Amino acid sequence: MLITLLTDFGTADYFVGAMKGAIFSVNPDARVVDITHDIPAHDVQAGAWTLLAACQIFPTGSVHVGVVDPGVGSSRRPILIAQRERFFVGPDNGLLSYLIDPEANPRVFHLTNERYFRRPVSATFHGRDIFAPVAAWLTRGVAPEEFGEPVANYTRLAALTPVEGEGGVVEATIIHVDRFGNCITNITRRDLSEKAEAQGACLIINNQEIRSFRRFFAEEAVAASQSTDELFAVWGSAGFLEIAGFRRSAAGLLKAERGQKVTLIAG
Amino acid sequence: MLITLLTDFGTADYFVGAMKGAIFSVNPDARVVDITHDIPAHDVQAGAWTLLAACQIFPTGSVHVGVVDPGVGSSRRPILIAQRERFFVGPDNGLLSYLIDPEANPRVFHLTNERYFRRPVSATFHGRDIFAPVAAWLTRGVAPEEFGEPVANYTRLAALTPVEGEGGVVEATIIHVDRFGNCITNITRRDLSEKAEAQGACLIINNQEIRSFRRFFAEEAVAASQSTDELFAVWGSAGFLEIAGFRRSAAGLLKAERGQKVTLIAG
Amino acid sequence: MLITLLTDFGTADYFVGAMKGAIFSVNPDARVVDITHDIPAHDVQAGAWTLLAACQIFPTGSVHVGVVDPGVGSSRRPILIAQRERFFVGPDNGLLSYLIDPEANPRVFHLTNERYFRRPVSATFHGRDIFAPVAAWLTRGVAPEEFGEPVANYTRLAALTPVEGEGGVVEATIIHVDRFGNCITNITRRDLSEKAEAQGACLIINNQEIRSFRRFFAEEAVAASQSTDELFAVWGSAGFLEIAGFRRSAAGLLKAERGQKVTLIAG
Repeated sequence: MLITLLTDFGTADYFVGAMKGAIFSVNPDARVVDITHDIPAHDVQAGAWTLLAACQIFPTGSVHVGVVDPGVGSSRRPILIAQRERFFVGPDNGLLSYLIDPEANPRVFHLTNERYFRRPVSATFHGRDIFAPVAAWLTRGVAPEEFGEPVANYTRLAALTPVEGEGGVVEATIIHVDRFGNCITNITRRDLSEKAEAQGACLIINNQEIRSFRRFFAEEAVAASQSTDELFAVWGSAGFLEIAGFRRSAAGLLKAERGQKVTLIAG
Repeated sequence: MLITLLTDFGTADYFVGAMKGAIFSVNPDARVVDITHDIPAHDVQAGAWTLLAACQIFPTGSVHVGVVDPGVGSSRRPILIAQRERFFVGPDNGLLSYLIDPEANPRVFHLTNERYFRRPVSATFHGRDIFAPVAAWLTRGVAPEEFGEPVANYTRLAALTPVEGEGGVVEATIIHVDRFGNCITNITRRDLSEKAEAQGACLIINNQEIRSFRRFFAEEAVAASQSTDELFAVWGSAGFLEIAGFRRSAAGLLKAERGQKVTLIAG
Repeated sequence: MLITLLTDFGTADYFVGAMKGAIFSVNPDARVVDITHDIPAHDVQAGAWTLLAACQIFPTGSVHVGVVDPGVGSSRRPILIAQRERFFVGPDNGLLSYLIDPEANPRVFHLTNERYFRRPVSATFHGRDIFAPVAAWLTRGVAPEEFGEPVANYTRLAALTPVEGEGGVVEATIIHVDRFGNCITNITRRDLSEKAEAQGACLIINNQEIRSFRRFFAEEAVAASQSTDELFAVWGSAGFLEIAGFRRSAAGLLKAERGQKVTLIAG
């Protein structure tokens, strides 16, 4: 049973090591996988999106821990979600909400049973004192209802879905810029079908038009008819439409950042 | 039996991979956990503090390897410390010294038995050629006295304890700035009891007074009576008093760095 | 059986986590070791060199996955190389070529058997969809010939060997600058024997002469006769001659970058 970790702790401090120590103190045989610890500090939205993109790949039986937790110590609840054969552990601030599929009959528990915490519980580091040990106890077979009372509600972030604008246009958003400068939008195949794309579609961002749709980043390099410095749209590996360049940062060229608006005009 | 690694090698080079390869070459079943590889280059003091904060969380039976080793190849000794049911492996330059509890009857060995080294031993990379294989042999059950002669002395860094100044004030130091900009001081509960704190205490740094003591970072967000942009003191998760802000970098606002002086006035 | 990962994905995105998820989905018992994910984006040469330096340390039976793959989705082939008791998996763009020893009778296979891919295979992320699952199936004992047809040729990068210039000088190159600012050249003991070094040798870079050869970085600190701010040459831990300083960045002082020319004059 795997435990994955995603935090905004960075890798230069003792925080990640301490979480792992807390896990192994409970279950010396635990298997721990880092997703990333480089979520921008306090950026719950970025953490939620990365959890969504990464965790869907893992096998059932995994325990996914997320800690982007500026409200640590306050009344925000520590929670555990049991959904199908997976577990999500973290603060109830929306971080885990993109992982929740309401149709999968998820069960949400408020983590209150201190028997499964590291003691004493600090007011500033629940990653080490609550979330890591709870994840480790889950891998030892403790049933989710042992950790606290079931709760019906939980904090959700605004949906990633773009908004339909006037005249059939779609008002979308850059939800992530990756290390290569690719700009990931919140546009999925529900917003732009293969048929509509084939009939011609256009993205507008910062008054620039993106009209070229490609299947992969190096496509221009193998098609003499295509410019080698043009930005283009490509369906990314997490299922979202991206704006990209070949070996160049689209974000840099477009001066685009996360949160920026993108308009999709189809047909 | 876990092996933890802390170095100043960064993660962009082949150094960390090579250390892991050296471990697995000795014990293919070893379990390796990264604490951090982002200790500032050559910064023995920073490495020692992070080892202290991280390793206390790990279960007994762990082998903790530390490599911040500007003197590699010189006459500084490679050492192994056996203390209670833990092992510390690294250069004898003070890096391991905060882990040593003189009351725990620690045994210190000079690593001289080349049978447990990777051969040939380079003059520039003892992490790969001495420390990693020694750690791996420890997890295979080799007794610590097999690795070399016991030695009585070892290099210690200056204690972290603050100095008592005139009139009952405490002259303390910033010993770490974390990724969130929190300034960790060397003040512990021995220097400021709960009672003394309740009677009113004040920190002075860069001619600024910090008078607010909070239990957690978001406290101001839940207390209408508190300013939302004030810096405050909070007891951090490693047992030291920190100067922090809510979602803001205290270090940035105070222009504070590691090594900077902080005065504590109690009562 | 270990799987090692080297990519240019960075650690801030979901890419590395997704590769690990794909591995564990095939083999929940796989053991995964990160070499580095901080190869400069698209820098096949840098990735190839780091694979060379790191992978030689690992035990036989390891599966080494490399993904620096700007041509992903194009006609560049995904390949698997079986050499002695090791496997190398990645794109056929030269990334793996320094690992290949023509005298070891390596067998190269074009990865075409979709049975061992994650489906659907994206056009932009073969790390997750082809290379990671193929590596995981290898650790489950699938024979290399099951993954696709054997091929005779593969892409090779230019050899690392320096060029012999006029009058016995050697025209060498900086092939890597490490985190400490050490400049690793492509000079090995084949280019400069111990005897020739003892008779006096000199490196020239950016019109500066390096005449001092030392055995380790701190040598000047223990030799009163040596200047403490001089740059010097030292045989590095990967077998190449390096230009280094004691606790100082040689690259910074020399304004040297990867690719820069270095002239070696012996005798």
